[in-house]
Amino acid sequence: MVEYNAPIRDYDFLFNEMFDAIPIAQRLGYDFDSDFLSMLTEGWADHAKEVWLPINQLGDREGLKFNEGRISMPPEFKSAYNSSREGGWLSAACKPEHGGMGVPVFFQAVTWAEIGTSTNMAMSVLPALTLGVYDVLIEHGEKALVDYFATHLASGEWSGTMCLTEPHAGTDLGIISTKAIPQDDGTYRVTGTKIFITYGEHDMTDNIVHLVLAKTPGAPEGTKGISLFLVPKFLPSDWESGELVGISHELCADDNGVSCSGSEEKMGIHASPTCVMNFDDSVGWRVGELNTGMALMFQMMNQERLATGMMGLGLAEIAYQNSLAWAKDRRQGRDLKGPQDPNEEADNILVHPDVRRMLLEAKVNNEGCRALAAWTGILLDQMHSDDLEEAELATALVALFTPIVKAHFTDVACETASTCMQVMGGAGYCTEYGVEQFYRDVRISKIWEGTNGIQALDLAGRKITQNMGKNLRYLMWPLTEFIEENRDIPDMSEFNKPLHQGVRGLQQLTLLMIAEGQANPHFLASGATDYCRYFGNVLLAYMWAKMAKISIEKIGDPFYDAKLASARFFFKRIFPETVSLAAKIQSGHKTVMEFPTEMF
Amino acid sequence: MVEYNAPIRDYDFLFNEMFDAIPIAQRLGYDFDSDFLSMLTEGWADHAKEVWLPINQLGDREGLKFNEGRISMPPEFKSAYNSSREGGWLSAACKPEHGGMGVPVFFQAVTWAEIGTSTNMAMSVLPALTLGVYDVLIEHGEKALVDYFATHLASGEWSGTMCLTEPHAGTDLGIISTKAIPQDDGTYRVTGTKIFITYGEHDMTDNIVHLVLAKTPGAPEGTKGISLFLVPKFLPSDWESGELVGISHELCADDNGVSCSGSEEKMGIHASPTCVMNFDDSVGWRVGELNTGMALMFQMMNQERLATGMMGLGLAEIAYQNSLAWAKDRRQGRDLKGPQDPNEEADNILVHPDVRRMLLEAKVNNEGCRALAAWTGILLDQMHSDDLEEAELATALVALFTPIVKAHFTDVACETASTCMQVMGGAGYCTEYGVEQFYRDVRISKIWEGTNGIQALDLAGRKITQNMGKNLRYLMWPLTEFIEENRDIPDMSEFNKPLHQGVRGLQQLTLLMIAEGQANPHFLASGATDYCRYFGNVLLAYMWAKMAKISIEKIGDPFYDAKLASARFFFKRIFPETVSLAAKIQSGHKTVMEFPTEMF
Repeated sequence: MVEYNAPIRDYDFLFNEMFDAIPIAQRLGYDFDSDFLSMLTEGWADHAKEVWLPINQLGDREGLKFNEGRISMPPEFKSAYNSSREGGWLSAACKPEHGGMGVPVFFQAVTWAEIGTSTNMAMSVLPALTLGVYDVLIEHGEKALVDYFATHLASGEWSGTMCLTEPHAGTDLGIISTKAIPQDDGTYRVTGTKIFITYGEHDMTDNIVHLVLAKTPGAPEGTKGISLFLVPKFLPSDWESGELVGISHELCADDNGVSCSGSEEKMGIHASPTCVMNFDDSVGWRVGELNTGMALMFQMMNQERLATGMMGLGLAEIAYQNSLAWAKDRRQGRDLKGPQDPNEEADNILVHPDVRRMLLEAKVNNEGCRALAAWTGILLDQMHSDDLEEAELATALVALFTPIVKAHFTDVACETASTCMQVMGGAGYCTEYGVEQFYRDVRISKIWEGTNGIQALDLAGRKITQNMGKNLRYLMWPLTEFIEENRDIPDMSEFNKPLHQGVRGLQQLTLLMIAEGQANPHFLASGATDYCRYFGNVLLAYMWAKMAKISIEKIGDPFYDAKLASARFFFKRIFPETVSLAAKIQSGHKTVMEFPTEMF
Repeated sequence: MVEYNAPIRDYDFLFNEMFDAIPIAQRLGYDFDSDFLSMLTEGWADHAKEVWLPINQLGDREGLKFNEGRISMPPEFKSAYNSSREGGWLSAACKPEHGGMGVPVFFQAVTWAEIGTSTNMAMSVLPALTLGVYDVLIEHGEKALVDYFATHLASGEWSGTMCLTEPHAGTDLGIISTKAIPQDDGTYRVTGTKIFITYGEHDMTDNIVHLVLAKTPGAPEGTKGISLFLVPKFLPSDWESGELVGISHELCADDNGVSCSGSEEKMGIHASPTCVMNFDDSVGWRVGELNTGMALMFQMMNQERLATGMMGLGLAEIAYQNSLAWAKDRRQGRDLKGPQDPNEEADNILVHPDVRRMLLEAKVNNEGCRALAAWTGILLDQMHSDDLEEAELATALVALFTPIVKAHFTDVACETASTCMQVMGGAGYCTEYGVEQFYRDVRISKIWEGTNGIQALDLAGRKITQNMGKNLRYLMWPLTEFIEENRDIPDMSEFNKPLHQGVRGLQQLTLLMIAEGQANPHFLASGATDYCRYFGNVLLAYMWAKMAKISIEKIGDPFYDAKLASARFFFKRIFPETVSLAAKIQSGHKTVMEFPTEMF
C-alpha cells in the first residue's frame, strides 16, 4: 500500500514565512489570503489523495487500450477525472470569466503540480497540458477563438495538447514538414504527422484541442518559418453559436481529419497516452502572427518545463515518503554503538548511517527544490505585475530558472527515486511496494519538453547572456545582498561561507563559459550540463541558507530544528559536488571533441 | 532491433597485452593458449548473440508463468538453454572430471559473464548460480555428495540456488529462523521459508539444488550458529547408484517437501524467477562443518558479487552500443562550428558536444571497469596457485576488489544506462528500442548479493583493516611502483599526476576512516559509500593510466589512439568527482547522525 501525505506544513512555511506570497498576491490584485491558500492546499491534498492516489498503481498495471485509432482509458481514470473536474480542481488558475477560480499561478504551478504528480503523474499531465493550451489561447488567440474554446478548456470538458515533434524532427524543430495551407475563409488546412503527443487521443474529454506547429507555403527556412495552429479533434456541431469566422457550416458535422495511428509502449507512465497523430487536411486556426509559432509554443513549452520539474519533485517526494515508511518499519541489524531497541530482535534500519544518508539526500534535495519552486511560482505571478520593474525582474528570473527547475529538479529526482529504492533493498525492486513505479515514471521527466542537455544549453548558451546579462544580474543582487547581510553573523557562517564560495565559483565559471564560448562554442556546449548542475546547486544553497536563517530564530521548535539540520546536511553532503563540477567544466572541450569519431 | 557486438578486441587487448593472462594460466597448470582463448571468446560471443540475444526482449515481455507452485519459462528460453548446455557453454569453468572444459576462471567470470549478461541477463543468472553451487559443493561437500551432484550441475542438467534471505531477515542473516534437525541417518530435515530466491523454481532443468542457510538445534546465537545444507527439489529415483549415505530408499520416490508459494512481480528481469521457497521437513545434507555456513555461503556470495558487478558492465555495454547506433543514425541540428553533412537536412547528433560527453562517459567507464574485471578474473585463478605468496597476494586483492567490483560497477552501470537512454531522447523511453529494458534490468544489480551500501561497509569496515591491512598493502605496492616508474616520463604525466594525487588522497582518507572509525563507528559508516566510490575511481584511474602507457607506444594505430583519448577523458571528466567525494567523507558523521530521527 502506497503512503502519501502532502507537504502542507512545508508549503505553509515557504509561502508564508519565506516568501510573503500572500501580500504579493494581494498587491497583484488577487482576492486571496492565507486562509484561502490553506483551504485550497488542504482541499486539493485531500482530493488528490482520495481520488487520484488509489488508482495510480492501477493505471500503471492496466494502462490504456489502443483500438482502431481510439484510445480508451481505464474507467477508474474517467470517473476520477470527472470528479476532479466537478470539484473545480482542474481550473484553479483559469480566469473566473471562463469558469476558473482565478487563484494565483503559484498555487497551480507549484502546490497543485507537486501534489498532483505525487498522487498520479499520468493523470496530472492532462490538466497541465490543457492549462498550457488555455494560457496561450487566451493571450494570443483571436476573440472568436477564445470565446469558443477557453471555457471548455478551463472547465476540463475539453483537453489540450502540444504538437511539436515529428519522426525526423525532435529537438531540431527547424526541419518539421507539417504544412498549413491558408483558405479563403481565413482558416488553414493542416496536414502532417506528429509523434510523442501526450494525450493526443483519449476518451476522458469530449474534444481535444491540438496546438500544432506547421509551416505555411513560402515560409522562411528553419524555425523562423513556423506558425502555430489550433486544430480541434472534432469540429463542434453547435458551431454557429461560437461565432467563429470563416468556416462553412456543412463541415462541422464531419470529423476533422485528426487521427491517432498508434500509441508508444513505454517504460512508465502507462496511463498517459503517447500518440502518433495524423492531421489530414484538418481545419485549423492560426494563433498569433504568421511565423511566430516557435515563440508562442515556447510560452507553453516553458510552462510545461516548469511543470516537468515539478513532476520530478512530486515523484521524488512520494518515493521518499514510502522508503521512509519502510525504513521505520524494517528491523535489520543493530546500531553500531549498541542496540537501540533491545527488546526487539533488531533495530529499525534508521539507526544505520548509510540509510540515514540516503534518506537525508532525498529529503534535503526535495525540500531545497520545493523552496526554489515556491520562489519561481511567485515570480510567475509577478511577471504580470503592472509595476514594470517588478515584471521585468520576475520575467528575467523565470527565464533563468526555467531550465534549472526543469533539468536540475528532474536529474536529482531520478537519483532520489533510485536512492529511495535502494533504502528498501529487494522490496524496492518489487511491484508490490510501489516505489519501482515512481522510478520508472520519473525517468521521462529528464526527456520531456527538451532533454536536460537542451535545458543546459538553453541556460549556458542563451539565458546567461540574454538581455545583456540582466537575467543573471537580477539574481546576483539579492544573492550578494543576502551574503553581505549575513557575513558577520556567527551562527550563519556555516551556511553563508560555502554559499559565498559557490556564488563566487558560479561567477567565475560564467565568465569562463562566456569568454571561451565566444571563441569556441564547443567549449560552452561541453561544459553546459555540469554548469547547469552547478547553478542548480547554488540556487538550492541559497534556498537552504535562507531557510537556515529563518530557523535559527526558532531553535527549539522541532520543525525549525529539522530545517537547520537539513541545511547542515545540504552544505556538507550535497553542495561539495560543485567542486568536481567546476573541475570538469574548466577541463574544457578537448577531451570531448578530440576523441576520434570513427572509433566510437 | 537491438544491436550487439561483443567487445572481443578489448578482451584481446586486456588479456594479452595488459595482463599476460596466458602465461599466468599456463604457469597455473591450465592447458590453455591464446588461440584457445580467442576461439572460446568468439565462439561464446557468436552463440550468445545468435541464441540468447534474440529472445531477450521476448523474455521481458512474456516473463514467466506461476501456476500452482510451478513456474514455467517461455519455451524459447528452454530451447536456448538446452542449446547452450549441449554446446558446453554452461560449464566452461567446471572440471573435466565432471564434464566441464576446465578453462581458467577468468574466462568464465569475466568474458562469459559480460557477454552472457549483455545478450540475456535473465538467462545468464541461472548458470551463474549453478556454477556457484558447484564450486562450493566440490570444495566443501563430502565425496558422496560431490559424486552425485557435481556432474549434473556441471552439465547444466540440474541448476542451483542460494537460499539466504527470509521475510524478516535480509541483510541481517543472524536472525534467520529456518531450522535443520539432524536425523539418525546423518541427513537433516530442513524447515523454513526463504524469499527472493532467484530461479528457486523453474522448468528449464530436471532438478534444482538449493544451498540453504539454517540453524541446527542448540546452535549459537546470530551468524555464528548458521550451517549450510544442500536440499534438492527432487530426491532422485536412481538414488542407490549415488552411494549417498543415510537415506532410506522409500523416501526417494517422494517429493522432498520443497515448494514455491509465489514469484515476485518486479521492475525488470521478468524472465528471471524470484521465488518464495518453502522447505517443509525437506531432506538435506550438511555441506562443510557445523556452524560454518556463513563462511561457505560467503564463498558463493563473493563469486555472485563479482558476477553481479559483471552484470552491471554487461548491461551498460549493450546500452552504450545501442545508444551509439542511434546517435550515428539520428540527424538533429548542426555542428556549432558549421554543418558537417551539408547535403543532409541535419548533422548526426554525434557532432553535439553534450551527446559526445554522454557517450564518452558510458564508453570510458565501461572500458575502465572491463580492465579491472580482467585483472580481478586473473587473480581468481591465481588464488589457487601452488605458489603460496602468489595465492596470498591474489586472495588479498580479490577480497579488496570484490565489494568495489560489485558496488562501483553497478552504481556506474545504472548511471550509464540512464545516460544512454538520455542520448536517445524519447526513443530511449519507448519499449521498441530496447534500452529501457536494460535500464530496468540493470537496476537490480545495485541490490543483489548485498546492497551497495553493504558492499561499502564491507570495504571500509572490514577489507581495509583485514589481515593487518595487508589487502591494501598488496595493492599499494604495484600502484606506487607504477607511479614511480612513470614519474619522469613526460608523455605520462597527464595520467600519472592525477593518479598519484588520487592514490595519496585514498591513503589519507583510509587513515582517516580507520582512525576516526575506531573512536566512532558512525564516522566510518557515514563515509563508507563515498569512500567505496572514491576507491573505485582510483582503481579505474590505475587501469586507465596503464592502458595509456601501452597505447602511447602505439600512437597512430586507431585502437590505441582511441584508448589514449579515452584515458584523457577519464582523467579530465570522470576522475575529478573524487575531489567532492573526499570533501563529503571528511565532513564526518555529524550531519548524518544529528538529524532528529523523529523529524524524518
